[in-house]
Amino acid sequence: MYQRILVANRGEIALRVIRACRELGIETVAIYSEADRDAHYLQLADEAYCIGPAKSADSYLKIASVISAAEVGNVQAIHPGYGFLAENAHFNEVCRSCNIDFIGPMPEAMAQLGDKNAARELARRANVPVVPGSEGVIQSEDEAMRFAHEVGFPVLIKAVAGGGGRGMRVAANDLSLKSALQQAQAEAQAAFGNGDVYLEKYIGQPRHVEVQVIADSHGNVVHLWERDCSVQRRHQKLIEESPSTSIDDATRNEMCEAARRLIGTAEYTNAATVEFIVDEQGKYYFIEVNARIQVEHPVTELVTGIDLIKAQIKVASGEPLGFTQDDVQQNGAAIECRINAEDPDRNFQPSPGRIERLIAPGGFGVRWDSHVHSGYTVPPHYDSMIGKLLVHQPTRQDAIACMKRALSELRVDGIKTTAKLHHEILSHTAFVEGRIDTTFVERTFMND
Amino acid sequence: MYQRILVANRGEIALRVIRACRELGIETVAIYSEADRDAHYLQLADEAYCIGPAKSADSYLKIASVISAAEVGNVQAIHPGYGFLAENAHFNEVCRSCNIDFIGPMPEAMAQLGDKNAARELARRANVPVVPGSEGVIQSEDEAMRFAHEVGFPVLIKAVAGGGGRGMRVAANDLSLKSALQQAQAEAQAAFGNGDVYLEKYIGQPRHVEVQVIADSHGNVVHLWERDCSVQRRHQKLIEESPSTSIDDATRNEMCEAARRLIGTAEYTNAATVEFIVDEQGKYYFIEVNARIQVEHPVTELVTGIDLIKAQIKVASGEPLGFTQDDVQQNGAAIECRINAEDPDRNFQPSPGRIERLIAPGGFGVRWDSHVHSGYTVPPHYDSMIGKLLVHQPTRQDAIACMKRALSELRVDGIKTTAKLHHEILSHTAFVEGRIDTTFVERTFMND
Repeated sequence: MYQRILVANRGEIALRVIRACRELGIETVAIYSEADRDAHYLQLADEAYCIGPAKSADSYLKIASVISAAEVGNVQAIHPGYGFLAENAHFNEVCRSCNIDFIGPMPEAMAQLGDKNAARELARRANVPVVPGSEGVIQSEDEAMRFAHEVGFPVLIKAVAGGGGRGMRVAANDLSLKSALQQAQAEAQAAFGNGDVYLEKYIGQPRHVEVQVIADSHGNVVHLWERDCSVQRRHQKLIEESPSTSIDDATRNEMCEAARRLIGTAEYTNAATVEFIVDEQGKYYFIEVNARIQVEHPVTELVTGIDLIKAQIKVASGEPLGFTQDDVQQNGAAIECRINAEDPDRNFQPSPGRIERLIAPGGFGVRWDSHVHSGYTVPPHYDSMIGKLLVHQPTRQDAIACMKRALSELRVDGIKTTAKLHHEILSHTAFVEGRIDTTFVERTFMND
Repeated sequence: MYQRILVANRGEIALRVIRACRELGIETVAIYSEADRDAHYLQLADEAYCIGPAKSADSYLKIASVISAAEVGNVQAIHPGYGFLAENAHFNEVCRSCNIDFIGPMPEAMAQLGDKNAARELARRANVPVVPGSEGVIQSEDEAMRFAHEVGFPVLIKAVAGGGGRGMRVAANDLSLKSALQQAQAEAQAAFGNGDVYLEKYIGQPRHVEVQVIADSHGNVVHLWERDCSVQRRHQKLIEESPSTSIDDATRNEMCEAARRLIGTAEYTNAATVEFIVDEQGKYYFIEVNARIQVEHPVTELVTGIDLIKAQIKVASGEPLGFTQDDVQQNGAAIECRINAEDPDRNFQPSPGRIERLIAPGGFGVRWDSHVHSGYTVPPHYDSMIGKLLVHQPTRQDAIACMKRALSELRVDGIKTTAKLHHEILSHTAFVEGRIDTTFVERTFMND
């Protein structure tokens, strides 16, 4: 086991990793930008180095500075958290070349899963359903028609070189497919200098369901059940929960086993999240793998009782997982609300500034993961999340009631937060009945 | 189920009950003394009434004022918390005569268990071991000798009219018994005008182990396993945990069943704690029943996943418990540290005053039950406990590590707390190895 780890991140996930290390008896080296120098959690690390100015590109994303701190701090391993360098295969490789363990997958596995086509190919090999798509570039209108009739309308036309929604069209029938195909090709040609497009089955109001997996270097691959992350605003997750209400038990078991099979096929080690979308009929399709710990990992920790950060550290150091698939139960119901320093009344614009007083919720079933406190100044430079409020209760109904009372206790004087929106979502009939998809929040609560 | 409940208490237990009610959709009426008027938790109640000056006798203990608030507030039930009126059978009866449910046992059951002799007799009927004692008053030296030889030395001589240690002597052999008997009788005569004494087997360095039980009005009596509360200072519990390290699994099952049998025999409803002492050989003896919820109840909530306050409210309203003995598992290990506003460097004298800044611990496995916050002023009039820090982990070793890191995160600027002493206790080999008894803290950490 390691004696000393560098935490290559900031905010709540830096604190989360420091906490796990303290409990394991591992010393920690923290890094911080000039904007974060007064953060309380730095005092909980054994050492802390300033690695540059506030701007992420000049500090948290600057590989040379992070590696320097690791070498000066004399650490054996680096935990990257999420975001910043967490899925940077090049950084991962630099760590290896410096003889520092990267607490995550090997660079090759990370690179393979970072390539969407390679990941899709991997899923096919592991016999995991993917969203049906055309075999490569569409050569003719006829081919597009054949594909659309095979998988059923609506279909999505996507530019091979695409991004940002350009060269993308939805077609609902033969007529619209013909015109949409021409439009998409023309738009792609204009935008990217490449008119090539391909087709996918279009999933209209999908549920986002993901499966937590962890694998060690001794061949043990274990899933820790699923999280439903369908409550999103502009592709940002707001609320995550486990179990998911979008799937029945048979689908749950099937999806979780599919995720485990995929990670096993990839010869992957450490924590991974296998993301799926689930259509209105409850059919699931693999989307991608996140080769890192995720913001919402505590949801899984609550229902399984397993500390995922400790597990990551253990398996990175070469130890076996220490539990088998049969040991991992999904107990009760857990919900997480991401509390952001944003003003819901002003189109969710960031609300940085000094927190004059913070009163955090507590009591039965409540977990609060946050690096902020009374007197803390939320800097304007980073992600606006100031804390994760979690609850764990015997049933989903209990969990919703507990989260609502916890939200009502949370008091953050001095800045605006999204707590009120969470309370509204949790009170909405569609949420209570589990009838949610990734368009739910925008359809229901947004005026813009 | 009730629509509206009065919480006849203050501080963390008042907040605890308010939280449970909010989650159950029950409105709450809080009461407060003039000293507590600015407490944040009052804002979480639906209504709050000032019932008098700071002095407990003029407010929280004043039955007429509490009942008035209940009548003005139009509640159906009163939750008494612990302390104050919680074990006052007269108050319990007044509630009944006013048609207000007392959330606890019936007055008769409370009175029976409040009488030590009646409780001891009840234990005998339920076939639960009690500390062996002489049958009533010792009439002669010969009788004392016979008893001592029957149960074995050392024995304890106690004044029938006794209290405060007067008329009390320990005898280790025949010779010391003769002189101690005479001394005790003379001292009792002088102190109480009554020289009668009786004998008990003396348990030298006992463990304090208690069993949580809850019973409904439909005949269901369920135990929720034990708590070890041996870490005490001057009979005040400092640290509580579950499971206990003082007993093996066979004894654990036997004790828990004995506690359940005792409560069943008493025809008792609602929550009760059956207290035992355990001697160095692991033999257990019934001491008394606490006919109320206890400070340390969250320890049990963590290992069982059952919300005891919600359960109390349910059974008081006449609903069945909703779970059976087989449903109640003891999962993992939980520890509670009582954080008191006291100065360990000044003989634990109270340290009231304004908390300039509070940073509470959080993260995996941590529960924080507290009514205090940044800017809160701890009044000098009440119990010095400002919060309960709890952890829940898969093993006791993990729980100790987690508690130590949580204690290291806790920051209370402006007043002194006992957090440092807790850290020392948790780091001590005897505690880590589970070799603790009720004399451990004073033998090991106190200079006075």
